[in-house]
Amino acid sequence: MTHQDTIPATSISLSRGEIFAAHEGGKLSVDSKVPLDTLRDLSIAYTPGVAEVCRAIHQDPEVARSHTWTNRLVAVVSDGTAVLGLGDIGPRASLPVMEGKSALFKAFGELDSIPLVLDTTNVDEIIETLVRLRPSFGAVNLEDISAPRCFELEERLIEALDCPVMHDDQHGTAVVVLAALLGAARVVGKDLASLRVVISGAGAAGIACAQMLLAAGIPDVLLLDSRGIVHTGRTDLTGKKAELAALTNPTGRTGGPAEALVGADVFIGVSSAKLPEETLALMADDGIVFALSNPDPEVLPEVARRYAAVVATGRSDFPNQINNVLAFPGIFRGALDAGATRITQAMKLAAAQAIAGLAADGLSADYIVPSPLDPRVAPAVAAAVAAAVADAS
Amino acid sequence: MTHQDTIPATSISLSRGEIFAAHEGGKLSVDSKVPLDTLRDLSIAYTPGVAEVCRAIHQDPEVARSHTWTNRLVAVVSDGTAVLGLGDIGPRASLPVMEGKSALFKAFGELDSIPLVLDTTNVDEIIETLVRLRPSFGAVNLEDISAPRCFELEERLIEALDCPVMHDDQHGTAVVVLAALLGAARVVGKDLASLRVVISGAGAAGIACAQMLLAAGIPDVLLLDSRGIVHTGRTDLTGKKAELAALTNPTGRTGGPAEALVGADVFIGVSSAKLPEETLALMADDGIVFALSNPDPEVLPEVARRYAAVVATGRSDFPNQINNVLAFPGIFRGALDAGATRITQAMKLAAAQAIAGLAADGLSADYIVPSPLDPRVAPAVAAAVAAAVADAS
Repeated sequence: MTHQDTIPATSISLSRGEIFAAHEGGKLSVDSKVPLDTLRDLSIAYTPGVAEVCRAIHQDPEVARSHTWTNRLVAVVSDGTAVLGLGDIGPRASLPVMEGKSALFKAFGELDSIPLVLDTTNVDEIIETLVRLRPSFGAVNLEDISAPRCFELEERLIEALDCPVMHDDQHGTAVVVLAALLGAARVVGKDLASLRVVISGAGAAGIACAQMLLAAGIPDVLLLDSRGIVHTGRTDLTGKKAELAALTNPTGRTGGPAEALVGADVFIGVSSAKLPEETLALMADDGIVFALSNPDPEVLPEVARRYAAVVATGRSDFPNQINNVLAFPGIFRGALDAGATRITQAMKLAAAQAIAGLAADGLSADYIVPSPLDPRVAPAVAAAVAAAVADAS
Repeated sequence: MTHQDTIPATSISLSRGEIFAAHEGGKLSVDSKVPLDTLRDLSIAYTPGVAEVCRAIHQDPEVARSHTWTNRLVAVVSDGTAVLGLGDIGPRASLPVMEGKSALFKAFGELDSIPLVLDTTNVDEIIETLVRLRPSFGAVNLEDISAPRCFELEERLIEALDCPVMHDDQHGTAVVVLAALLGAARVVGKDLASLRVVISGAGAAGIACAQMLLAAGIPDVLLLDSRGIVHTGRTDLTGKKAELAALTNPTGRTGGPAEALVGADVFIGVSSAKLPEETLALMADDGIVFALSNPDPEVLPEVARRYAAVVATGRSDFPNQINNVLAFPGIFRGALDAGATRITQAMKLAAAQAIAGLAADGLSADYIVPSPLDPRVAPAVAAAVAAAVADAS
């Protein structure tokens, strides 16, 4: 096997051959849940019987919730502008990710899901398209849409549609990061409200993580972008970054990663920017490092462990994998189960607490979140999210 | 069981209870074709492995045909304006029909299919929406869209999309009608080119049937609408009807059903207009009657048989069921197998001949087309359609 034939930077060795074989013909299948073997079967599922159900929905649109698939159907929507670490590769090339996401919705959330990839990057046009398609689905998972467009798109789409809408790269990530931080803080015996948190990356994930941690009661959160610490004195900030400059960095720090990390309790990496070892040494005792960039973490766990008490990554071949699949299937499942039309901050907080709760037994420096394959996770998240909906109403 | 609890006008007795039970939660399921049980499985189907496939498609868009599901995916698209016999009941209420159609695509054509119902009846907006969604699917089956909008929509969508597009209510119906007529003409020993054909109904199905029969070499085709015979002297005709007035009715007949049916060899009913028994008596000897309105045929088979040698309906409880399911799964399957970007008249003719060919053995007045459940049909249609694509290129 030549170097070119293997996928580097993960200890699970995958060959191009097996990856392409698994993708041949795509990863999804639409199947009938009703038999279609006899003329009688056809008469029930299609004409003339189906007309009875059509007529019932025409008289009472609520019947569509119980007697079509839409109320359990999540549209995974992307324009392919920010796909994994690959960037703007377009809608067609983003499809394998979206098919994978739809497959995960079924495997973990028992929800049906279809990928809808759009040949436009215009926010108005994306919203208009989904408004027209509204009767076709029950929820929208926005995926791999570049910042800062993703913020405007999500905000406006939530207003435009009467169903759950969530940009997973923002909020799915934020939920699992908070869940992991709840576990890690307990491991090191620090109070959540006392933590000084540095987030490297002020894109979709970084900004959502900052908002989530603030909502969870952590006052001292600081964002780093490619130009250094985000602070109110910077004149190059617009939109969400400018908003967050005002909400974060309460001590008014300026400078780069070194100035940010002096005395920090937590480092959360959600950009591909490497973290130099010497800046790690500046962190407080019993530090927490989440190096979530995939497939190449901001710092390798073996290096980070020299300076931090708890280390997590996004990868499956190290302990403490922080993976969105812990969150999104249960969040959408809970929202749809409860008939919610919005996914609120309270629902996301409930999801994070539910994930953290499952790791509470057996918590250790190498076990701050459950495994992405833990079958307890999605049902527990769904139940917590649905309960948060019920509490709010 | 009260009258209200049963679906009348078909001898297959269905209860509302069993119809609604079959529709609970919808009729479709999206499932993963790849395992997602281990971290290794996740690494292949999702990150990091999936990035290899994304990168390959980014470099060569053709890889999307083989390594995503889109090339086997038919979007069943409706705006809910002409649903079964129910009329304009809207997109949400049309969904059970579209789910059924998608289920039939899998059961008979082994194609994946998703319903996309649109909350707009504006032709420009429907086209724009599907153009934006183009990377998401491999073909479009338009369904239950009212005339005359359906003609403009289909024509413009064929131009706008580089993939197979077909309005099944038009062309699926026309293909199965021609297939049945090929069989029926052989049964009565009449030459196709010698037939005088009367089509009752000048909507989507009637007009497509007329075009198809003309293309198949039947010169004497006449359309009837609610105002009588379609002829060039009428001043109330626009669009397709005006076009067809010039192409049909070569002997320039005027009047109503009685004037149309005097000496006719074939009556094809694709409207709900009842056919009075006395007009049937005016037909030529060895007549052919296709009374396709569902669930109430234009004339009941037991009445029609007194005057005609061959009688067919759209219903499963009489002999000779003329059902679109004989055509559309194989037509789309063949078009996608062959990589066709259009569904041409030649492909539709090939489909009709393939269906008729399967009934040639054992042909009789009660067996002019194969059963909708005959498993030979879709593969034979697909092969014939693909061969027609190859012949044309």
